[in-house]
Amino acid sequence: AVRSLSTARNSLTVGLIPADGIGREVIPAARDAIVAVQQELPPLKFIDLLAGWDTFTRTGTALPSETVRALKDECDCALFGSVSSPSRKVAGYSSPIVALRKELDLYANIRPVRSVSADASTPPTTDLIVVRENTECLYVKDEKLVNTDNGKEARAIRLITERASTRIGKIAFELAKARPRKAGTGSNCCYFSDLLQLVTIIHKSNVLSVTDGLFRESVRAVPVAANGKFDDVTIEEQLVDSAVYRLFREPQIYDVMVAPNLYGDIISDAAAALVGSLGVIPSINAGDNFVMGEPVHGSAPDIAGKGIANPVASIRSAALMLRHLGYSSPADKIDKAVNDTLAPGKVLTADLGGSSSTSEVTKHIMGLIEA
Amino acid sequence: AVRSLSTARNSLTVGLIPADGIGREVIPAARDAIVAVQQELPPLKFIDLLAGWDTFTRTGTALPSETVRALKDECDCALFGSVSSPSRKVAGYSSPIVALRKELDLYANIRPVRSVSADASTPPTTDLIVVRENTECLYVKDEKLVNTDNGKEARAIRLITERASTRIGKIAFELAKARPRKAGTGSNCCYFSDLLQLVTIIHKSNVLSVTDGLFRESVRAVPVAANGKFDDVTIEEQLVDSAVYRLFREPQIYDVMVAPNLYGDIISDAAAALVGSLGVIPSINAGDNFVMGEPVHGSAPDIAGKGIANPVASIRSAALMLRHLGYSSPADKIDKAVNDTLAPGKVLTADLGGSSSTSEVTKHIMGLIEA
Ligand SMILES: CC(C)[C@H](C(=O)O)[C@@H](O)C(=O)O
Ligand SMILES: CC(C)[C@H](C(=O)O)[C@@H](O)C(=O)O
Repeated sequence: AVRSLSTARNSLTVGLIPADGIGREVIPAARDAIVAVQQELPPLKFIDLLAGWDTFTRTGTALPSETVRALKDECDCALFGSVSSPSRKVAGYSSPIVALRKELDLYANIRPVRSVSADASTPPTTDLIVVRENTECLYVKDEKLVNTDNGKEARAIRLITERASTRIGKIAFELAKARPRKAGTGSNCCYFSDLLQLVTIIHKSNVLSVTDGLFRESVRAVPVAANGKFDDVTIEEQLVDSAVYRLFREPQIYDVMVAPNLYGDIISDAAAALVGSLGVIPSINAGDNFVMGEPVHGSAPDIAGKGIANPVASIRSAALMLRHLGYSSPADKIDKAVNDTLAPGKVLTADLGGSSSTSEVTKHIMGLIEA
Repeated sequence: AVRSLSTARNSLTVGLIPADGIGREVIPAARDAIVAVQQELPPLKFIDLLAGWDTFTRTGTALPSETVRALKDECDCALFGSVSSPSRKVAGYSSPIVALRKELDLYANIRPVRSVSADASTPPTTDLIVVRENTECLYVKDEKLVNTDNGKEARAIRLITERASTRIGKIAFELAKARPRKAGTGSNCCYFSDLLQLVTIIHKSNVLSVTDGLFRESVRAVPVAANGKFDDVTIEEQLVDSAVYRLFREPQIYDVMVAPNLYGDIISDAAAALVGSLGVIPSINAGDNFVMGEPVHGSAPDIAGKGIANPVASIRSAALMLRHLGYSSPADKIDKAVNDTLAPGKVLTADLGGSSSTSEVTKHIMGLIEA
């Protein structure tokens, strides 16, 4: 499993890759949050790095080799903003975030989705983690186009390996085991009659019996091989179509959801819709040697440059990244300041129905951290 | 485009394939609905046909060749229930519904999703059609498993052709053109400032630039080649992850959504969650020579055999099938009886929060048709 990277450090170097669109407005807010808790961290260093569509149009590459080199040689971790991608194939362009996940072997995309309760005694209706395999499935981008007498035909390879499915399965079980036991609510809830920890495997093996069959079996083999370590974790399965349906109808039935890459992409957006806005959902891309925080939202070209993007997803991604590096106490401080900003519902960006700017929300959160 | 199959007929022969689980409880209800409007149809004949997991366990094949033969040689159309599929690969078993779609070249899976308004003056918040390509994408089921030194590796082919993307695109534009112009509501709605007809192409071409790029371009080429026929139809695009997110947040922005097979599978379940229950969503699998109605819900093993399954999806599928065959007036009668049952909210199955049985709901609908 991914080690949480809690080695003692003399310094903490954070790569900052705002990339495109609102990434440029929210990554600075995440940086501010890290700076605000610096007394609990080793001496900080930030390195600004380039990537994205804009970088591509200026330099001919969406992911300069210097960015990869600096991340590997100089950084302990990084924060990535968001990229604008062309919808047509553009010669030489390839998504830098997909490339970075592979290049740094950040095989686990971890996306906690939790609704904010107005008061502490009400449990959140949605409180789940999407654990998304981050290196294969259709994201291997092995595609071919041929011309035939009947017109063009395109084929893509969907790769699922036992190795990658097993390692992502381990992350899911580790996370489930570390979470508080959860009680379900609602009459339709068949899962949570007792308090439990749960891993739900998302697949479509009724159609993809070989690839999704391998994913499913590899994840199921994890607790079997773990000598009782995960005996307390219950395993469920759900077809991806039905998982999305049930996510809308009974989000409380999920705890940890583990999925191949593309399904994970879709269900994390679906889950985000349940808690108010994509603008509040953080993620980390984690590997055995590196971790990169990334807001789940995209580059949002419609609002980019207006100063109204929600900084919460990026700020929470910074906290998640710090937690993964072993710095729980500063991570808790950031998360608490965010929750104490969201719960009263007064200082909110437009995506949450408010009218505050990116910098007003950021300042409010920083004020609470420093209080 | 799919012809609506409105040839004059001396008789109408309907294949009935209840298959597994609640399919066996709801297909008889759909048959009853067709019988209830028989005075507006040619003389009816029903043929009971086998398929499914249960058929597989008894006969060794999930889709007997006699079923395919009878559909091709004797039937004008058919109704399919639902199948239970094993999640592991079982030698010799293969999903009969996926096979039938290919065998009969039922290339368009058409799934209208519409919320019921309590009174006629309120427009439904969700009123869209998912037009799903039904023959290719990962559903070609071309999968291979190899053993390597690093463990098992599985690969699946995702096939997208210009031909199939073009023909499904045509269906989408034809349907959009035939629909009433739609006005959007809600402040987030960027689409519907004017009344319009809209096709939204769902893809993930930021990752799958070749396969989804071909899908997208082929659909976009349809109006270009149509000599102005579709000039009134607006085209939008949405990445599949973001489409699911927006479907939850602003369903009113969608009119006709056209998607490759797997995305179509997922978004139609997502849309279903918006209108109360999968139990009310009908579909047809349509080709140039045949049409097969099919409720979107699955076999629901948890409630099968209890007599509480919602018959509405199947009854509506029968209406959709009749409409596609050119029988609009009997289709309207069935749809009206269904809506007049759902809107008052008194005779509902458990999935919609009621306590009526399958047969009580069916009888109520039949009573309204015959009234
Ligand atoms: C930008 C895109 C390539 C990316 C993905 O599909 O992984 C995004 O949607 C995400 O979820 O991080
Ligand atoms: C049963 C399954 C193979 C099928 C599909 O994935 O197409 C179902 O989910 C559907 O939507 O009709």
